[in-house]
Amino acid sequence: MKIRVATEADWSAIWPFFRQIVTEGETYVYDPAMSEETARARWLLPAPAHVVVAVDAEGNILGTANMYANREGNGAHVASASFMVDPTRHGRGTGRALGQYVIDWAKAEGFRSITFNAVVESNVRAVGLWKSLGFEVVGTVPEGFNSPTHGYVGLHVMHRFV
Amino acid sequence: MKIRVATEADWSAIWPFFRQIVTEGETYVYDPAMSEETARARWLLPAPAHVVVAVDAEGNILGTANMYANREGNGAHVASASFMVDPTRHGRGTGRALGQYVIDWAKAEGFRSITFNAVVESNVRAVGLWKSLGFEVVGTVPEGFNSPTHGYVGLHVMHRFV
Repeated sequence: MKIRVATEADWSAIWPFFRQIVTEGETYVYDPAMSEETARARWLLPAPAHVVVAVDAEGNILGTANMYANREGNGAHVASASFMVDPTRHGRGTGRALGQYVIDWAKAEGFRSITFNAVVESNVRAVGLWKSLGFEVVGTVPEGFNSPTHGYVGLHVMHRFV
Repeated sequence: MKIRVATEADWSAIWPFFRQIVTEGETYVYDPAMSEETARARWLLPAPAHVVVAVDAEGNILGTANMYANREGNGAHVASASFMVDPTRHGRGTGRALGQYVIDWAKAEGFRSITFNAVVESNVRAVGLWKSLGFEVVGTVPEGFNSPTHGYVGLHVMHRFV
């Protein structure tokens, strides 16, 4: 697996699994009916944000991440990021590789820490992955997310210094 | 004091204290050099967001608040809000009145709860006010804010059901 900068041409390979993940509505506070145009603009952020894809040896896109300053002004020393891994290609360590990439990127860019603002409590795979990469749950908004299968669950704020 | 819907015409009275608060950089994760155009667009949000001003008996604007869904999709049952009170007119209960207005608005609009995503820990007036209105600190991003006078301080996530 290789992680490289995403291009506009990658979008057509990202959108099918992006749409599936957003439509399922279990992991992101995105509108499940989000249009492709909105999704593309939301994901392929311009610099200074940074967008990457993880590809296998054949060049197939396994997942993607974008990363950026979490806030402006006097909060701009904290990075954040979002991740999408193709559900048909889970289990290859793509999420972990993208997470480690974001940590390295944040350090190289001079951020002091990384915060994920809204990690769905019932998304145990993501919560466990971030914990294994050194993130801690520093707070939980009770019932902040309405999971189609689990009902109201918490939204974790997860954090680590870099 | 009266709270009424804000109009475009109110902006010229809001901007002086908005600019002062943002320039001081002690309470908001906004760019301290934010332009007036950006500030206006950021504050006078279109519906379904709701923007109000608190005015005294002479019609002077004492403060303002905007309120909106905190997130999209399966997180859209949680409201959030932002507040600005004219620093030259503190001590008249404006912040409390605007906070209570937001609670009532959120209830009337069918939200289940309110979350403030980034309350600066050293802004003890705001933290105390929200606590007195039934909000709890449900998490703190350590060193999430770089206060010009206090250095790195936490950013609280505060929450209450409505």
